[in-house]
Amino acid sequence: MNELLLLNGPNLGILGKREPEVYGTDTLADIERAVGEEVADRGWRVVAVQHDSEGELIGAIQNHYDTVGAIVNPGALMIAGWSLRDALANYPRPWIEVHLSNVWAREQFRHESVIAPLASGVIAGLGPLGYRLAARALRERISD
Amino acid sequence: MNELLLLNGPNLGILGKREPEVYGTDTLADIERAVGEEVADRGWRVVAVQHDSEGELIGAIQNHYDTVGAIVNPGALMIAGWSLRDALANYPRPWIEVHLSNVWAREQFRHESVIAPLASGVIAGLGPLGYRLAARALRERISD
Amino acid sequence: MNELLLLNGPNLGILGKREPEVYGTDTLADIERAVGEEVADRGWRVVAVQHDSEGELIGAIQNHYDTVGAIVNPGALMIAGWSLRDALANYPRPWIEVHLSNVWAREQFRHESVIAPLASGVIAGLGPLGYRLAARALRERISD
Amino acid sequence: MNELLLLNGPNLGILGKREPEVYGTDTLADIERAVGEEVADRGWRVVAVQHDSEGELIGAIQNHYDTVGAIVNPGALMIAGWSLRDALANYPRPWIEVHLSNVWAREQFRHESVIAPLASGVIAGLGPLGYRLAARALRERISD
Amino acid sequence: MNELLLLNGPNLGILGKREPEVYGTDTLADIERAVGEEVADRGWRVVAVQHDSEGELIGAIQNHYDTVGAIVNPGALMIAGWSLRDALANYPRPWIEVHLSNVWAREQFRHESVIAPLASGVIAGLGPLGYRLAARALRERISD
Amino acid sequence: MNELLLLNGPNLGILGKREPEVYGTDTLADIERAVGEEVADRGWRVVAVQHDSEGELIGAIQNHYDTVGAIVNPGALMIAGWSLRDALANYPRPWIEVHLSNVWAREQFRHESVIAPLASGVIAGLGPLGYRLAARALRERISD
Amino acid sequence: MNELLLLNGPNLGILGKREPEVYGTDTLADIERAVGEEVADRGWRVVAVQHDSEGELIGAIQNHYDTVGAIVNPGALMIAGWSLRDALANYPRPWIEVHLSNVWAREQFRHESVIAPLASGVIAGLGPLGYRLAARALRERISD
Amino acid sequence: MNELLLLNGPNLGILGKREPEVYGTDTLADIERAVGEEVADRGWRVVAVQHDSEGELIGAIQNHYDTVGAIVNPGALMIAGWSLRDALANYPRPWIEVHLSNVWAREQFRHESVIAPLASGVIAGLGPLGYRLAARALRERISD
Amino acid sequence: MNELLLLNGPNLGILGKREPEVYGTDTLADIERAVGEEVADRGWRVVAVQHDSEGELIGAIQNHYDTVGAIVNPGALMIAGWSLRDALANYPRPWIEVHLSNVWAREQFRHESVIAPLASGVIAGLGPLGYRLAARALRERISD
Amino acid sequence: MNELLLLNGPNLGILGKREPEVYGTDTLADIERAVGEEVADRGWRVVAVQHDSEGELIGAIQNHYDTVGAIVNPGALMIAGWSLRDALANYPRPWIEVHLSNVWAREQFRHESVIAPLASGVIAGLGPLGYRLAARALRERISD
Amino acid sequence: MNELLLLNGPNLGILGKREPEVYGTDTLADIERAVGEEVADRGWRVVAVQHDSEGELIGAIQNHYDTVGAIVNPGALMIAGWSLRDALANYPRPWIEVHLSNVWAREQFRHESVIAPLASGVIAGLGPLGYRLAARALRERISD
Amino acid sequence: MNELLLLNGPNLGILGKREPEVYGTDTLADIERAVGEEVADRGWRVVAVQHDSEGELIGAIQNHYDTVGAIVNPGALMIAGWSLRDALANYPRPWIEVHLSNVWAREQFRHESVIAPLASGVIAGLGPLGYRLAARALRERISD
Repeated sequence: MNELLLLNGPNLGILGKREPEVYGTDTLADIERAVGEEVADRGWRVVAVQHDSEGELIGAIQNHYDTVGAIVNPGALMIAGWSLRDALANYPRPWIEVHLSNVWAREQFRHESVIAPLASGVIAGLGPLGYRLAARALRERISD
Repeated sequence: MNELLLLNGPNLGILGKREPEVYGTDTLADIERAVGEEVADRGWRVVAVQHDSEGELIGAIQNHYDTVGAIVNPGALMIAGWSLRDALANYPRPWIEVHLSNVWAREQFRHESVIAPLASGVIAGLGPLGYRLAARALRERISD
Repeated sequence: MNELLLLNGPNLGILGKREPEVYGTDTLADIERAVGEEVADRGWRVVAVQHDSEGELIGAIQNHYDTVGAIVNPGALMIAGWSLRDALANYPRPWIEVHLSNVWAREQFRHESVIAPLASGVIAGLGPLGYRLAARALRERISD
Repeated sequence: MNELLLLNGPNLGILGKREPEVYGTDTLADIERAVGEEVADRGWRVVAVQHDSEGELIGAIQNHYDTVGAIVNPGALMIAGWSLRDALANYPRPWIEVHLSNVWAREQFRHESVIAPLASGVIAGLGPLGYRLAARALRERISD
Repeated sequence: MNELLLLNGPNLGILGKREPEVYGTDTLADIERAVGEEVADRGWRVVAVQHDSEGELIGAIQNHYDTVGAIVNPGALMIAGWSLRDALANYPRPWIEVHLSNVWAREQFRHESVIAPLASGVIAGLGPLGYRLAARALRERISD
Repeated sequence: MNELLLLNGPNLGILGKREPEVYGTDTLADIERAVGEEVADRGWRVVAVQHDSEGELIGAIQNHYDTVGAIVNPGALMIAGWSLRDALANYPRPWIEVHLSNVWAREQFRHESVIAPLASGVIAGLGPLGYRLAARALRERISD
Repeated sequence: MNELLLLNGPNLGILGKREPEVYGTDTLADIERAVGEEVADRGWRVVAVQHDSEGELIGAIQNHYDTVGAIVNPGALMIAGWSLRDALANYPRPWIEVHLSNVWAREQFRHESVIAPLASGVIAGLGPLGYRLAARALRERISD
Repeated sequence: MNELLLLNGPNLGILGKREPEVYGTDTLADIERAVGEEVADRGWRVVAVQHDSEGELIGAIQNHYDTVGAIVNPGALMIAGWSLRDALANYPRPWIEVHLSNVWAREQFRHESVIAPLASGVIAGLGPLGYRLAARALRERISD
Repeated sequence: MNELLLLNGPNLGILGKREPEVYGTDTLADIERAVGEEVADRGWRVVAVQHDSEGELIGAIQNHYDTVGAIVNPGALMIAGWSLRDALANYPRPWIEVHLSNVWAREQFRHESVIAPLASGVIAGLGPLGYRLAARALRERISD
Repeated sequence: MNELLLLNGPNLGILGKREPEVYGTDTLADIERAVGEEVADRGWRVVAVQHDSEGELIGAIQNHYDTVGAIVNPGALMIAGWSLRDALANYPRPWIEVHLSNVWAREQFRHESVIAPLASGVIAGLGPLGYRLAARALRERISD
Repeated sequence: MNELLLLNGPNLGILGKREPEVYGTDTLADIERAVGEEVADRGWRVVAVQHDSEGELIGAIQNHYDTVGAIVNPGALMIAGWSLRDALANYPRPWIEVHLSNVWAREQFRHESVIAPLASGVIAGLGPLGYRLAARALRERISD
Repeated sequence: MNELLLLNGPNLGILGKREPEVYGTDTLADIERAVGEEVADRGWRVVAVQHDSEGELIGAIQNHYDTVGAIVNPGALMIAGWSLRDALANYPRPWIEVHLSNVWAREQFRHESVIAPLASGVIAGLGPLGYRLAARALRERISD
């Protein structure tokens, strides 16, 4: 068990091309690489999964119970992704929710995440750096 | 037309391994078998479908208009599965909604099902037995 | 202890004559007989109680702590029967809430039951058959 | 760039067979043909996509950034399709939301569309004709 | 069938002694007599029933299906008397809801009556005279 | 001062032709005549005013402070006619609110009247007869 | 007039046997005795009434207008006991509302009492001692 | 009967001078002309009515029951124009609601129209073109 | 351009006779004179307009775009005067909202004004003096 | 550890001069003395602290962890004193919330206390006597 | 008694440096001077107090009961400053609430002031001039 | 300008002794040291400020406009600390909100922070490590 799950939800596959004034110019590949660097000294490998479909995200969680932990950016599934929530409720390891933008500075419907109550922690508004911080947090909090 | 549709939604494929203190230790296969036994004397065969994706569940409904009736456990799609609701609105036969757990004893967001108003009946909180009761109800209410 | 409590609330004494298009033509006596048949092989006898008054229903619960379990149709007390709820909170055995009609297909004020969070399970919309299913559920879930 | 995207969401693939008293008897193929006729003199070809899954609809949008514009019938995803909304937020061209039925004459939960704030316009209640009107609107509003 | 049901709910038995600045000084007997006078020329007799208990009121309705119509002052059961509502739903004749005080000029919780949607009409704020007007309305609207 | 103000709001001028299944076939002239008959023995004359505009209704109230009392059917101004409310707040005599239909049996937005808290009484659901009852109430409650 | 009314509502007759972890092990008889001791030096006798039915509680209030004051534990009628409220509105003497448990530390629906606005004071969360404190308060506040 | 009613509400008489960045530079006369062209081949003449007062709009509807259909832009009366709604409820022919701007992209209070549930269809956000589309829809949907 | 618009809404024409305990004894003429005195040294003349009808108020605004600024007391149109709001949105000059009474010390429905967000400022509760203060504010804030 | 903390919040230092018709004429010193008398036989000394600032109240709590218990009147901090709540959450001893007035008989915003869920009990509406009752409750409930 | 209290709440001490595009460039000293000039001819002296802490503001009010009146800008304490409200409830003289910005043109949470119901009047949106208008209002309304 | 502001709100001064099962055993001094280490290589010094009073926190922000950025843990002021919000709105540098616990896994009233919309980012649920991550984020995002 030396893999870290990096799970990205709808519309995150096109990062870099997606509303760059909101989400920045880094691509998802850039982020995956950065996360990998952050946890390299723990000997962890990053398993990066991105889907636009809630069903496939659920499948990915079920297939990766044997990871050390996870970083989850649910995208807009933070709003009504109750099935994703149930999938994460059964995930046996620590995980951290990440949002690129500061969701509380945006529309009201982005102000409460249905998965956040189950997360170990939440990091929002810090762009791609948020993923690295989440990786570091898992690195420090998960014992061998 | 001698098939009964048994439709299970997100996170129900991992029954037995999923939060067993909430959902019990029976697997979905166990449930399918039990339902089959319940309706065997009517000569009905169970068509069991499980998907984690709302889209695929909709497809399954569209492909099984010629079943005698259905048992539907929408999982967390009870909360915001409006598309599933629309699919069921077009399903031409009686169907019963089943939940393993007593959803009213859980979080507030599980207290109202968007598909329930269209169901013939609802059975909740009785674990795998609920599926058998639903099967029996269909068996008794559907005339040849 | 070989009695099963069958508790029916307001307006259920006139079943058969009551809005038959909603509640069907079975009388309460029909239902009591059917429930009795369902649990006969467990050696259980049905104690059937119906009251239009919440206070008398509470009294009935207090007088039957030594039953094996209960089937409760609260009628419209599902809406604001908080005292009934408190009485059931002290009932020491499993019980199942039953509604003849599918309450979610009706007015908004029938969509949430104040007693449901305390029930072992809920069965709604299946008419008199719902009582039989509840009886069977208790028969299978209660060990000798 | 001479393609017009015609995007239809859940349960719209079975038009003609779906609750005809609500949605009419035209099939989706009929609609696609009618839209094609409406924009033929602009030299536009219709790319018709229908999916029951929100994830696949998002993919279709990402794959068709190079269309001249779009007509989008989200079906019940109008209610909680926040991921679809985010996908459309990144679509670079004008698009119009169409509903076959008058959603405001139906249940309360169909009264506000989460994607409408991003549309160029909304047309509802006019049946298949609504698509043709949307096509004409795009034809007149999009300059070469 | 020549009886008119006059049904009064909780706290109306002490009229005359009850907060006279709100409810006036007429007693319930005064009101019964006045209603009787109003319908005397139709040959109707008034059956006056008053109970403080919702359950007994329900019983009274069930026992008087063979009346020509009813005048119902539910008292505070207008607020949460859902069981009374269900009893009235099964009452086969026209009935009118009466309130002595103008309930909309009082606390917010008296502004909507749960039984009013089922009434033929509502008269409020006119004191004991309201009962007479209700009697006259029934007298004119009910054909022999 | 021997005039009774009969004030009717928007859409009440076309009574008889207006949704007769809801509002009946009596014309406003019929109602004015009936009210006149009801108060004739008090020597009162009916001043009948109908306007579709809230502003003109306000003017009518200001011009008739010297009437003995008023019957007011605000039509849909019951919902948001705050200016009408303020005009009635300054009317120095008793007045009664009348609605032809039972507004609580209709849409939710007709369940609370913004003018009702200021009325002496409210009569609803009794059709044109409601006006006569209101006239009688004023006749009996207003002393010479 | 030397009697103090001690009025207890639904489910309080079984104190001692009722969810003892919430309500303690004292019986209602214990409480009545304690209250009696508290007011003995004023020469007051305790009239203890307990009913599970709101209607009977209303009757008890009407029958005891000549008491010096009252202690009222409405049980769950604090939530929707509007008829009880109206009965207490006509009670001519000071009275204090008592709850055994701290209702604000429990479910949301126990956070506001419909009778509290009419009480002289409210004491909650102090178990049987709360009744004694209420007795003392009445003893000190009521002059001979 | 060969007239089409074109009804415009408050603040629409100054189109062209009114917040042109929101409502465009076309005048109402331009729109009336365009609508006329759209329906010319049906032999229909446009009767254009604009009022800032709800009362006068109601009058216009009552005076034009013999038109073939109507296009209605209620302006801000979409928010609380309940009297206008009642007037339209009695209009015997098909009519379509039009808004120049996309009301869902604006303030929350513009997100639900009180008249929309009664319309045959709604077209919003397409500027003056919306009126032409509405005209075409009526032209195609109304049989001779 | 040397005119100041003084716009008063419904029920303000009868100031002095209107609920004097709330609105005082000054007449509207008194107020117009006082405002005139306040701005006389700027060489401004007061154009005073009062209407009970929202439609006419809208017309007045459209006819006075060439005033230096405005003082607007919307009366009860502060509550649901959305059309008035739209008219003011197009008014090209500074304007101040005035209320005679302190609207926040009154009923809840007077606590938020739909036109206030568009005003330069709001003055409430200071009686007729409020108009003079508004006049002074415009006098000091509007440059020649 | 023989001290009892008596903590009073904003505006309670001026008791006796503060709205005497609501809060009475006793001063805070009177209350402190009365509480002292109540607990004298336990050998407890009263440490009385009053601050108008939430921050200082928090400090006082932190400085008195070694008291035997506390009486807390939060004044208006009952409404939004979340920081005070967090301070009390860490206070290791029993404490009772006291209000001089019956907060449920006052404005809606005084009907729920944010600190009450953490208290051992709540006493309200009994004036200065409430403090003495609280003292007695602590005296009886705290063992040596 | 010849002092006027000028009370400013949190974040108002840094006026001039604070978000100047919202609050302007005048300093608090400028405002104090202007208010002083406004009331000089009454012989009043301005006592200017500013605190960022609600507790200290409450203290300032208690210390200045002998002022002729007050101008109060509560800053953001308008939103949840319930303790400040209670302090002002005991202030024996007229006072006026002032806000520099038009709070209704800003975020929703600034749309209702908890202290406004107790003020003599409210002036908002007119910048530093608002203080001068408030001073003038007090000067004219307070008799010697 | 080489100082980093570390601002901690109410109840954070007692970290280590405060509900350790929620907030951990690290003291505030531990956290200050850890943050200092994190930013040492930028040559930044940590200015640590903790207050239980909102007023003093506001003062601290005003006194530290010349810091490079800030880390802010508002404690329970996240709920109603509108004055703190206004102070932060004027803070000229980037700042990050930190919470030790996962506020969304706790009571509903901790689910939305009034200051979050103004933050550069938010980190919650990661205990003392959250401060270090915030420090790192500022270190990487703030250019020299």
